[in-house]
Amino acid sequence: MNLKIYVLVTSDLCKGRPPDKVVNATLQGGATAIQLREKNLLGRELVDLALKYRQLTHQYGALFIVNDRLDIALAAGADGVHLGQDDIPASVARRLLGPDKIIGVSVANAAEARKAREDGADYVGLGPFFPTESKTDVGEPVDLDTLREVKGAVDIPVVAIGGIKVENAAVLCAAGADGVAVISAVVGAPDIKDATTRLVEAVQGKKLSKEGE
Amino acid sequence: MNLKIYVLVTSDLCKGRPPDKVVNATLQGGATAIQLREKNLLGRELVDLALKYRQLTHQYGALFIVNDRLDIALAAGADGVHLGQDDIPASVARRLLGPDKIIGVSVANAAEARKAREDGADYVGLGPFFPTESKTDVGEPVDLDTLREVKGAVDIPVVAIGGIKVENAAVLCAAGADGVAVISAVVGAPDIKDATTRLVEAVQGKKLSKEGE
Repeated sequence: MNLKIYVLVTSDLCKGRPPDKVVNATLQGGATAIQLREKNLLGRELVDLALKYRQLTHQYGALFIVNDRLDIALAAGADGVHLGQDDIPASVARRLLGPDKIIGVSVANAAEARKAREDGADYVGLGPFFPTESKTDVGEPVDLDTLREVKGAVDIPVVAIGGIKVENAAVLCAAGADGVAVISAVVGAPDIKDATTRLVEAVQGKKLSKEGE
Repeated sequence: MNLKIYVLVTSDLCKGRPPDKVVNATLQGGATAIQLREKNLLGRELVDLALKYRQLTHQYGALFIVNDRLDIALAAGADGVHLGQDDIPASVARRLLGPDKIIGVSVANAAEARKAREDGADYVGLGPFFPTESKTDVGEPVDLDTLREVKGAVDIPVVAIGGIKVENAAVLCAAGADGVAVISAVVGAPDIKDATTRLVEAVQGKKLSKEGE
C-alpha cells in the first residue's frame, strides 16, 4: 500500500482541465495513489469518472481510492474508500467491502486514529497541517507533535494532509508521515506532472539532502 | 412488492418534525413503502436514519427503499434503491445489489421505461404528473396518455410521482398506475397519519365510488 504521493482529485479544483487528464499527468509525475474526491457530481458522472481513474491507475500501478461513496468504489472496482468522520462509519464500510479493500479514515488526533484502527481502517489521513483552500469543512490545524502522537498510537500508515506543498512535504515525512496527500498543490498546478515530480523529490528527501550539502 | 402508497421522506420537507416520527406516522396511516430521499445529509447521518427507517418499515411490514445511495441501502439492509436518470445506472446497481433487491428507476416516457426494464429495474417511477415544489430537478409534466403508453411498454409496476395529492391520486390509479409516490402531500401535512389514510382511501377508490353513488 504505497500512499507516499497521494493525490486527491476534485474536478472543481482542476482549473478547467479534464480531471482524467489531470490524473494521467500526476501519475506520469509519480503519484502512487489517486483519490476521487467529488462533492458535487451525480452518481452516473461519478461512475464514469471512477472507471476512467481505475483504468489509469491500473496502467501506472497506482492505488485508486474513492472518497465517501462506497457504492462508487464498488461499481468501479476501486482499491478502497476514504471516509471522513461524518461519512459512513469504517466498521460499516468494512462489513460491506470485505477484508481486502483499503479503508482510510480522516483523523485529527491520536484518539480518533485509535478509534479508526479499531473500526478496521488500513490507514489514517491526519490533518490539516496548514491552512487550506481546498477543504472548507476541516478543523484547526494539527502540528508535528500530533503527528508523532498519532504515529505512536497506531501501527497503520499515517498520511499527512491539508495545505501540503512541495516546500513543506519533507518535514512531515521526516517527522514520521508515511505519505503526503495533496490537492491544490498538484491538481491546481500549472504543470501537473512537474509539480508531482517535485513533490516526489521532496518526499524522497532529495531537496533536504541538497540543502544539507 | 406493494408500492401502492409510496411515501418519499426528505427531512427538509418535514416542517421541523423528526423524519423518523414522520415515517412512523405515515406507516400508521397505511403507507406501503418508504423511500429515504436526502440530498443534503452526510454518510453517517444517512446510515443512522436508514437504520431507523429499516426498523420501522419492518415493524409495519412495509418496503424500505433508499434514493440514489446504494451504499446506504446496503448498510441498512434496505429492500432496494431508487435511481434517477443521473444516478448510478440500473445495470451497475443490479450487479452490486444482486438479483433479490428492488431497483426502481425514474422515467419520463415509454422509451426510458423500456430501457430501465432492460437494465434490470423492478419498477419505474413515472412523472412528474403535476407541478411540484418538492423536486426542482424534474422535467415537463407528463400526462395520462404517457401513463397508458408506459403501462403498455413494460410489464413492471408503474408508480406515478410528482405533485400527487389526495385529490388527484384516484384518477392516476384509474388510468393504470400501480401506486402513487408522494412527498409534500404526506410529509408536509399537518396530520401525517390522517393525510396518509386519506390517500389510501383515494387510491382504493372509496372516494371515487362515493362520488359515483
